[in-house]
Amino acid sequence: MALNTGKILRVNLSSGKVTTESVPEQIALDFIGGRGYGIRYLYDEITPGTDPLGEKNKLLMLNGPLAGTTAQAVSRWMTCTRSPPAGAFARSVCGADFGAWLKFAGYEIIIVEGKAEKPVYLHLTPDSCHILDAGEIWGKDTKETQAWLGQQHGRNTRTACIGPAGENLVKYAAVVSNRRTAGRCGTGAVMGSKNLKAVAITAQRKIQLSDPEAYNKLAKEQVNIIRNNGSFQNHKEWGTTSTQDVTNAIGIYPVRNFRYGQHTDYQKIAGAEYRKLRVGDMGCYSCPARCGKVHSVTSGPYAGAHSEGPEYESIWAFTGPIESNSIEASIAADQLCDDLGLDTISTGGSIGFAYELYEKGILKKSDTDGLELIYGKHEPMVALIKKIARREGIGDLLAEGCMRAAASIGKGAEVCAIHVKGMELPAYEPRGAKSQGYNYATASIGASHCYGYAAQDIFGSPEPRPTDRFSEENADVVIYNQDGTAWKETGVVCAFAGGWGWVNLFGKMIAAARGIDKFADDAYLKKVGERMFNLERAFNVREGFSRKQDTLPERILTEPLHTRKAPGEGQIVSHQDEFLDKYYQLRGWTKDGIPTEKKLKELGLDFVLKDIAGSRKQ
Amino acid sequence: MALNTGKILRVNLSSGKVTTESVPEQIALDFIGGRGYGIRYLYDEITPGTDPLGEKNKLLMLNGPLAGTTAQAVSRWMTCTRSPPAGAFARSVCGADFGAWLKFAGYEIIIVEGKAEKPVYLHLTPDSCHILDAGEIWGKDTKETQAWLGQQHGRNTRTACIGPAGENLVKYAAVVSNRRTAGRCGTGAVMGSKNLKAVAITAQRKIQLSDPEAYNKLAKEQVNIIRNNGSFQNHKEWGTTSTQDVTNAIGIYPVRNFRYGQHTDYQKIAGAEYRKLRVGDMGCYSCPARCGKVHSVTSGPYAGAHSEGPEYESIWAFTGPIESNSIEASIAADQLCDDLGLDTISTGGSIGFAYELYEKGILKKSDTDGLELIYGKHEPMVALIKKIARREGIGDLLAEGCMRAAASIGKGAEVCAIHVKGMELPAYEPRGAKSQGYNYATASIGASHCYGYAAQDIFGSPEPRPTDRFSEENADVVIYNQDGTAWKETGVVCAFAGGWGWVNLFGKMIAAARGIDKFADDAYLKKVGERMFNLERAFNVREGFSRKQDTLPERILTEPLHTRKAPGEGQIVSHQDEFLDKYYQLRGWTKDGIPTEKKLKELGLDFVLKDIAGSRKQ
Repeated sequence: MALNTGKILRVNLSSGKVTTESVPEQIALDFIGGRGYGIRYLYDEITPGTDPLGEKNKLLMLNGPLAGTTAQAVSRWMTCTRSPPAGAFARSVCGADFGAWLKFAGYEIIIVEGKAEKPVYLHLTPDSCHILDAGEIWGKDTKETQAWLGQQHGRNTRTACIGPAGENLVKYAAVVSNRRTAGRCGTGAVMGSKNLKAVAITAQRKIQLSDPEAYNKLAKEQVNIIRNNGSFQNHKEWGTTSTQDVTNAIGIYPVRNFRYGQHTDYQKIAGAEYRKLRVGDMGCYSCPARCGKVHSVTSGPYAGAHSEGPEYESIWAFTGPIESNSIEASIAADQLCDDLGLDTISTGGSIGFAYELYEKGILKKSDTDGLELIYGKHEPMVALIKKIARREGIGDLLAEGCMRAAASIGKGAEVCAIHVKGMELPAYEPRGAKSQGYNYATASIGASHCYGYAAQDIFGSPEPRPTDRFSEENADVVIYNQDGTAWKETGVVCAFAGGWGWVNLFGKMIAAARGIDKFADDAYLKKVGERMFNLERAFNVREGFSRKQDTLPERILTEPLHTRKAPGEGQIVSHQDEFLDKYYQLRGWTKDGIPTEKKLKELGLDFVLKDIAGSRKQ
Repeated sequence: MALNTGKILRVNLSSGKVTTESVPEQIALDFIGGRGYGIRYLYDEITPGTDPLGEKNKLLMLNGPLAGTTAQAVSRWMTCTRSPPAGAFARSVCGADFGAWLKFAGYEIIIVEGKAEKPVYLHLTPDSCHILDAGEIWGKDTKETQAWLGQQHGRNTRTACIGPAGENLVKYAAVVSNRRTAGRCGTGAVMGSKNLKAVAITAQRKIQLSDPEAYNKLAKEQVNIIRNNGSFQNHKEWGTTSTQDVTNAIGIYPVRNFRYGQHTDYQKIAGAEYRKLRVGDMGCYSCPARCGKVHSVTSGPYAGAHSEGPEYESIWAFTGPIESNSIEASIAADQLCDDLGLDTISTGGSIGFAYELYEKGILKKSDTDGLELIYGKHEPMVALIKKIARREGIGDLLAEGCMRAAASIGKGAEVCAIHVKGMELPAYEPRGAKSQGYNYATASIGASHCYGYAAQDIFGSPEPRPTDRFSEENADVVIYNQDGTAWKETGVVCAFAGGWGWVNLFGKMIAAARGIDKFADDAYLKKVGERMFNLERAFNVREGFSRKQDTLPERILTEPLHTRKAPGEGQIVSHQDEFLDKYYQLRGWTKDGIPTEKKLKELGLDFVLKDIAGSRKQ
């Protein structure tokens, strides 16, 4: 079998130089691909202390060894860089088709270096890479940008781009491809800092595999397993649009900037409510789940809002932090974030932070451009999203994220800044799912829900062992989750698809794709996962991180979590007599509940009269 | 078009006489079919004061005018009689194929009169009806009984039968067909009182419709609508196995005999947990939903338990009343009830009643055959189910239902008897869904969830108008729900399928089936619904019912509902230092979180050592 280690496209935007290289065999052996390549190259190529938004930072875009193949749910891709919000290692994963197209163009990695003098975009084909003028699309939203690129380069083109938020260096700007985002870690701001608006790839399906025969047999086996997997079927039906049904029920749905673990008006944001506004499904390349549930608002103040999403994290981001019960507002907010190129989690978290400061009087109406940031009111939230992307007024402050905003506000704002390493917390309350919380504290990139998702705490998953979700003695499980995520992300396996019963095939698949038999050994994979996590740690240590930054927010460590009584608490049925009076009256019955002669005749039931005559006289 | 009003098979078990008759046109015009026929005939043929378990009571089995046709979800069937637990009108609806087979045999109604001298069963074909000896199956469970009948009469046979509970006149014994039940109202006890073990029908598909061409066009339209309906798709995926996700979240999941509206350990009984034990789907005749989710237990003390179900009411019945978190026990209990022929709702309710009496010391260990009825312990629940069906020990008392059991126990037991008209309450807490509660209070048969299901309170349905679920001013909505259920049950439309977007076709469909154009008019249908409900009321009035019995249990009227704080209430993350110590130790890092030389070398990351040497010395 020929060795197939993957190809790199290196683009220097300062010099305009474009080169290609192959990944050396030793790096492939030690790091497999995907996130493994990401940390390996980033560690080598970034000098400690590099400004994340400076010319010397680099942006990596990576797919995995299986991208673009007939296997399912393995064509995702990611960005890696030094993180603008955290200053730590950054990796942000994205869906849609871009990862497959990058493979069709012949590459597994793009390394973007330097900074263009004026806005540009890359146009990539299997035979060429051009740095082109982006003057016409600079300032445009992601939908307009992608449409324009499609017109320029034709229907076999797929794109990843930034919106106004990335151009304006919002610390949590996203990279957007179709309607999916590499949301977290502000990698969109790194693109913006390089004056790089987009990467467009024009290519047709073409894949190189070391052992296509073995691979295709494995891929068929994978497809069969997935089709019959219950978790897959559930994901296909719901995506993550009903996860709040579980998290709210068990009290880990963070509300009012992590002061409550439940939403008082939960019923209005339940999965079944989102289901009512669903108008379609969208999916990633070669994935039958189509978990991107598309929602459309047809009436009310948000009529016309239309979004692929919100999925669970974004449902939460636009209902939990400000305790809104408007699913319509959440759909509008989700759409805005995708259009403007913002991470929904950090956007919602930063807005929740602002609402709490407003409640406490630390921010006043004069500070918020006249917006009244009152819990439950969602119109100001939607207004703030636009302001953040454009860095207008209060939006300029919130665009820095809650950690930096709190530091510049002072006056006790710090305790309201709910972040780890500058990354706003996602939609799982750490006090009610402590292994998930400690994953936030120790993940290489800051507070990430998916860096080592504690399904044991949240869904009762039994592997590697069940956990008590309130116990703080599950360090082994946290490590198992983190290292497991790491090795799966060498092939950029979708986080959901990892639970569809087929991952025991993963090693064999990458072995056949790369021509490296060792990968078929599960113990080897686990070692690679641990190696990746340790190299990420070394990257962070080199940047000055240590135990001090591995901490949850003060609130989580000192304030007791409050849950909510259900709205029915204390209810009794207290007006039965009045109810029966009204019910009998509407029925046309007597005060004693006996059908009247009039009603019986009206219904043609005259024959009954004689039988109940005595009762009617009571 | 020829008029097609339906045929009656009348069987007198005392005399052995079997006759057939046609439904007169006027009765068809006024009552359409199904439940309409049920109340119309029962009203005429039952003398007031008839003992429900005496020879003079009659048992009706009815399908609807659309049963057995190509239309979907309209082949259910029901029993009607005077109710053993309530003394009121009884109707109990069942699924599976029996309704279609009754139509294939040529009938819409079987009227069973009298009492056989020894156990018998009916065997019915399109050309014959025989009363046959049931000596070999008397005492057998419903699975054995149906298997035996299948062997006797061949594969084109469908059956409805009772189990030991019906033979032993348990007040809430069910009639069972395949694994579906006509559960409520104790109509299985009426069969038992007549020494009638089963009805078996051998027939092949044959349907008479007045206007087959028009009908089949409508049926095709219906099939298309259903296929694209979101509520249908959800029902197909989940059945009702996740309804507890909603009811528990909003605090109307009755726990500990209706003292709490939420389960403390909800996560363990969530829909997703049942999903893990699902092994298949089963459905009724001509219904694509296959909402009967089959669960199987493969390990632990209930290994081997296997049931079509539990669906929502039964999930609740075996987790809520005794606050058990064992889905395995609920599956075993559900299977037992189907085998023994018991209504799950009244079984669970009666057991919950017993547990509360035990907690209060009103029942002692010496009263319960040594069983310790302690909340959360499910083994005694499973033991009680067997005792109830066999009327052994404490089971003999509980077999009477909580109303009669409380009256015979005295000592304050009455306040623990949660029933309306002798029917135990189903799985929706009235204090948190008051329109549902008032439906319990006023439904003709006693506390029934589906007699006028308040989807407005429970799922926020907007028709005919939204409700505040705590308001007691929704008498109009209660009536709308009850009358709407009534007219739909003239065609024995499945309660779920009524929400799949096609019921505006229902009138046209029964018009084409019957050859009675008037039925195509929605206002006419509504009038029929009201007529049915009023005739049922007259039946009850004639039996002595009036306002006094239209009441919810004292507890619901006087004790405030209590909900539960989520288990996370008050939690903080309090051992971060200990966690990090352990985490770093397991990672092979220093106390300060820096990878050790040993670990880095082990992972082949020697090149990192020089970069973080300073940090490692800290």
